[in-house]
Amino acid sequence: METELQGQEKTGFTIDGSGCIKAVFGKIKATALNLAKKTKEVGQDDPRRIIHSLKVGLALTLVSFFYYVRPLYNGFGSSGMWAVMTVVVVFEFTVGATLSKCMNRGFATLLAGALGVGVNHLGDLVGDRGEPVILGLFVFVLAAASTYTRFFPHVKARYDYGVLIFILTFSLVSISGYRVEQILELAHQRLSTILLGGAICIIISIFVCPVWAGQDLHNLVATNLDLLSNFLEGFGSEYFRVSRDGNSMMGPKEVKSLINGYKGVLNARSTEESLANFAWWEPGHGSFLFCHPWKQYLEIGGLTRQCAYHIEALSAYLNYEIQAPLEFQRKIQEPCMKMSLESGKALKELALAIKTFSQPSSVDEHLESSKSAVDELKTVLKAVSRKEDDLFKMIPSLTVSSILTDIVKCVEKIDESVHELSRQARFKNAVVGTVSPDKPQLLRRGIVKPLNDGDGDGDGDGEHVIVMVHGTSSKTNQITVV
Amino acid sequence: METELQGQEKTGFTIDGSGCIKAVFGKIKATALNLAKKTKEVGQDDPRRIIHSLKVGLALTLVSFFYYVRPLYNGFGSSGMWAVMTVVVVFEFTVGATLSKCMNRGFATLLAGALGVGVNHLGDLVGDRGEPVILGLFVFVLAAASTYTRFFPHVKARYDYGVLIFILTFSLVSISGYRVEQILELAHQRLSTILLGGAICIIISIFVCPVWAGQDLHNLVATNLDLLSNFLEGFGSEYFRVSRDGNSMMGPKEVKSLINGYKGVLNARSTEESLANFAWWEPGHGSFLFCHPWKQYLEIGGLTRQCAYHIEALSAYLNYEIQAPLEFQRKIQEPCMKMSLESGKALKELALAIKTFSQPSSVDEHLESSKSAVDELKTVLKAVSRKEDDLFKMIPSLTVSSILTDIVKCVEKIDESVHELSRQARFKNAVVGTVSPDKPQLLRRGIVKPLNDGDGDGDGDGEHVIVMVHGTSSKTNQITVV
Repeated sequence: METELQGQEKTGFTIDGSGCIKAVFGKIKATALNLAKKTKEVGQDDPRRIIHSLKVGLALTLVSFFYYVRPLYNGFGSSGMWAVMTVVVVFEFTVGATLSKCMNRGFATLLAGALGVGVNHLGDLVGDRGEPVILGLFVFVLAAASTYTRFFPHVKARYDYGVLIFILTFSLVSISGYRVEQILELAHQRLSTILLGGAICIIISIFVCPVWAGQDLHNLVATNLDLLSNFLEGFGSEYFRVSRDGNSMMGPKEVKSLINGYKGVLNARSTEESLANFAWWEPGHGSFLFCHPWKQYLEIGGLTRQCAYHIEALSAYLNYEIQAPLEFQRKIQEPCMKMSLESGKALKELALAIKTFSQPSSVDEHLESSKSAVDELKTVLKAVSRKEDDLFKMIPSLTVSSILTDIVKCVEKIDESVHELSRQARFKNAVVGTVSPDKPQLLRRGIVKPLNDGDGDGDGDGEHVIVMVHGTSSKTNQITVV
Repeated sequence: METELQGQEKTGFTIDGSGCIKAVFGKIKATALNLAKKTKEVGQDDPRRIIHSLKVGLALTLVSFFYYVRPLYNGFGSSGMWAVMTVVVVFEFTVGATLSKCMNRGFATLLAGALGVGVNHLGDLVGDRGEPVILGLFVFVLAAASTYTRFFPHVKARYDYGVLIFILTFSLVSISGYRVEQILELAHQRLSTILLGGAICIIISIFVCPVWAGQDLHNLVATNLDLLSNFLEGFGSEYFRVSRDGNSMMGPKEVKSLINGYKGVLNARSTEESLANFAWWEPGHGSFLFCHPWKQYLEIGGLTRQCAYHIEALSAYLNYEIQAPLEFQRKIQEPCMKMSLESGKALKELALAIKTFSQPSSVDEHLESSKSAVDELKTVLKAVSRKEDDLFKMIPSLTVSSILTDIVKCVEKIDESVHELSRQARFKNAVVGTVSPDKPQLLRRGIVKPLNDGDGDGDGDGEHVIVMVHGTSSKTNQITVV
């Protein structure tokens, strides 16, 4: 039947009505299959999404039942709807975002309610003729002023929703036309229902499979370092077309994953900033104390992006064919590969230190050897200059070595920044596992996966697994934008 | 008095009660001054923010009066609040964002309302005991499923708010406990008030000083090209420490503005994407037809960022002291400066073409001369290789020339992409003004301002002004995130 349908689609017409219906059903089937595939992908990218959806369903059902069963309940217009509304609007993916919205909603409602009552009272004093003017004036001025504050970067980042709710509540209360006593009674009902809705959200958000924005930020920063590390560890041997340790060279697919692996880092800034803002609202949890230095993560993230820009420049040279004289190439190969590999390892150590909340102590060794590689390169270049003569063909290799030198500097800065984080967040001293310097992780580069992906290279040594167990999927970047 | 206060603050204590009060007042005064300064800055960055705030105030006052004066009005709980709520929640900075929210809110309310009525009816059929179970089940399943769809990138970008309103309305209607006839009457009232609120927002948003997301995206893409152009036009003479055309060299402040000017381009992606999403909702306006190729802007934006990454690598060399042999330096200076200047001019032409909706015809000339500069450089380098011998000291200059070659390639790609845009959007043929090749715009680099900023260089020639008149402040990037 399917081949028949395909034939009909190809010729572009159908013979009779039943054929037409079949074609339509075929299309519907294809769309449904496509949708099912996408649905599965979204869930596989981050299974916490499925749990989050169920949590929202649960919170909403709970609050619905509360008001459905409750004897006070008297239909659509009652306060019950405020609880439902609160749950729908306030429940976000991360605990921090949910808390931020709850707090903003609660405080803004209180403040605006009080102000609204005051203005309403003022309106009563002025009398029937002046009242609409006074009320209209206040609504206009406060709405305009509050809207303007939403453009302040600090307000926008943390209190945007609060300002929105402030405008809403103030307008509703001040033009409600009720007397003050009525409003107070209503406000009591409404606040208690909002509190109930908010409380249900917060409790479910924190106690049922919580997604902490802080933890996500922590993981994201470490994962991004890992991604750069994967590139750097793979770059040297790939650029110089060297197969090391008896491993075969990378296929085009692996090269592609090497190049694409770090791309997400280039655009991670907005995700990092929103996660840091949400993390600020979160209470202490696990290894994160109340005043965890979230700002320092942003600094590390910024430096990581700086490094990623250099890597972006470097990656363009992966597809160049080396034309430099063999003699020259052989001389710079050793220090360049060492710079790339050692700075990659240093980044991996830093990522590991962040993941395990431990002092990045063994990084120094890799940093030192990457710096000594820079010196070696200098010596080589100073020596080579008088013998070789094909300057033009050397340029790509020289540029690569120059960019690698910049990357070593960048990694040093990242190292300082991670040390500062470990000081501020009081990381513990012991390091759980180290990347052994003599066993390069050739085949994991470009992909951060917790499991041995069965490429049969026998590279799944114990120390290596420790690095990976703490790793998160590189798709975390997209997940946490919610 | 102020010095006294400062003294008290320094010593950390106050002598008596009146001193303490003075200190508090001093602090309040300082905070207020700071706030006033910030407030002014936010408005100066984009005066449209002030207008937007007034527009929101106007819309809210209008809708409030409508319900305050209306005889049908019967207090807080009535449908009137839905109009107020709609205005507060739906009114956004750009027309596209407002329309997107209005449409989402309208359609989601209709769809969810109909579904809710159906489920409510089903509950009635099942009987009193089964009803809560059926309703709870439906609320749970639909809320969880809808929440899950919010993770789909396409839904997230365009219909996120609609899904939220869908969940909200469905829950409210299905658990309302009203009979179907009552619901229909309520729905009629509510929908009409939502429509009224939405209509007021849309009308004010479109007809009172509209802010079109499409126009903003258009300007942003052109401005970003301009920013890169400014850097490239300034880079050559700054790197080679050459003062051209009798102009004095740049001071450190100008160098800083040269370096910082393009930085915003690196992180413009999220802004561009959200603007493109909002622009999709906007009706045709001015030079933008209904099916304007917004996607193409994203492509140009992506290529611009690619170019910015190269520039980021380049900017690191501005602070290097050149150590290369003078002879060598002099030889590569000419082609390098030409590459930088001509690709900068090409970008400026492209930005101008976008701004004036005209075919980027005169770009080819600059592109050709930048490409011929690449060839010149190659010839120079091939010739130089046999004479010079201080390879190590040449590396920074060689890297700079290599990066400049990459930038020329990038600019070619941007050129193709802008040509594709001009084809898709049917730009007109004539170009309003061209950048005259013999008058480099030395002193405007790093800052895009419409007015001659009085630096007395006599560079304000007519053609030049045309370029600038269409320019927007570089701070557009931050403005339009709203």
